Amino acid sequence: MNILENLNWRYATKKMNGTAVPQEKVDIILEAARLAPSSSGLQPFEIIVISNKELLEKIKPVANNQTQITDCSHLLVFAAWDTYTEERINEVFKRHSNERNMPESASDAYRMMLIGAYPNRPAEGNYQHAAKQAYISLGIAMAAAAELKVDATPMEGFNYPALDELLGLKEKGLRTAVILPLGYRDESDWLLNLKKVRTPKEKFITEIK
Amino acid sequence: MNILENLNWRYATKKMNGTAVPQEKVDIILEAARLAPSSSGLQPFEIIVISNKELLEKIKPVANNQTQITDCSHLLVFAAWDTYTEERINEVFKRHSNERNMPESASDAYRMMLIGAYPNRPAEGNYQHAAKQAYISLGIAMAAAAELKVDATPMEGFNYPALDELLGLKEKGLRTAVILPLGYRDESDWLLNLKKVRTPKEKFITEIK
Repeated sequence: MNILENLNWRYATKKMNGTAVPQEKVDIILEAARLAPSSSGLQPFEIIVISNKELLEKIKPVANNQTQITDCSHLLVFAAWDTYTEERINEVFKRHSNERNMPESASDAYRMMLIGAYPNRPAEGNYQHAAKQAYISLGIAMAAAAELKVDATPMEGFNYPALDELLGLKEKGLRTAVILPLGYRDESDWLLNLKKVRTPKEKFITEIK
Repeated sequence: MNILENLNWRYATKKMNGTAVPQEKVDIILEAARLAPSSSGLQPFEIIVISNKELLEKIKPVANNQTQITDCSHLLVFAAWDTYTEERINEVFKRHSNERNMPESASDAYRMMLIGAYPNRPAEGNYQHAAKQAYISLGIAMAAAAELKVDATPMEGFNYPALDELLGLKEKGLRTAVILPLGYRDESDWLLNLKKVRTPKEKFITEIK
């Protein structure tokens, strides 16, 4: 199957059937998410993978009681950095230098440029920028899930501060960006047989040749 | 090739060799971008595809003279809605109702909820939300490009207002969210043989079982 067939197969599953996604498929989806590119390679987010049923039951009311929260087998929480700090930027650059066997000085100018620019900006804007990087990863994770015929439902319809609180994210300097339940569609899902509708090509795309 | 092999193959190509990406591959990448899911299905962005050499030459200085702007064959500009309006929301819902042969009244409650919430928020926050949806599409477009062995370099390093001005986006109620040159890597690209570095799994992923 190619990516267009996979993307046409997928849809935002509202009713999942409770079947568990095998761990090896979850691992592939997470690895795809990890390999996603990000601005300056900073990867300013983490993923919390929740399969604990009690915790999912607690999250459900925070997410407007949407049933895919408890009928999925794994809930991916994309948690973005609450801001950029010098320490966080330094850690990434140190890792790059180490793994590439290059002197840290080789990337000093770029590192110092980021440190001069990012940590001094308001935290809210930095979080928004970090969240966008998480959305790239979200897109790639959904492409991976579709390739594996795993259903995945991107969700913003939840109480962000309440979920952050439930997961203790503030203490980790993180804020939820978006969540993605993984599972399998229930055949009775009302959305399943609805036509996929998108902006028509002629409106979505403008070519300047 | 599966998605992990494709993602490991890709990298943020800095030096492209000028070879043109065949139109049928560009079309697949654009179709993948169009099929990307978005919040409430609103798809609050468009894509401008620039292959005009003169225009690319004008964009290059606006993008810190990065050479992939002129050595790519197609530059994808993801342009997000500058805000959500009642008209824009109504147009999407009307399209959905028409294409699904459902009465418009069936989705009225949801439509009215969005109209009550979105257009009244500050435009900047709405643009940021729209831009995030464009980033999902960006991620999926990059997965499609990698499947086709087309190089794609996500870029934020440019003067946003200047690019908006060059493309006349303001008049269309759009603002650039991110850009993506498509082309082919030059074998002399200094980044080509550098190890891909990502946050280690144990730091990137937290499992709550």
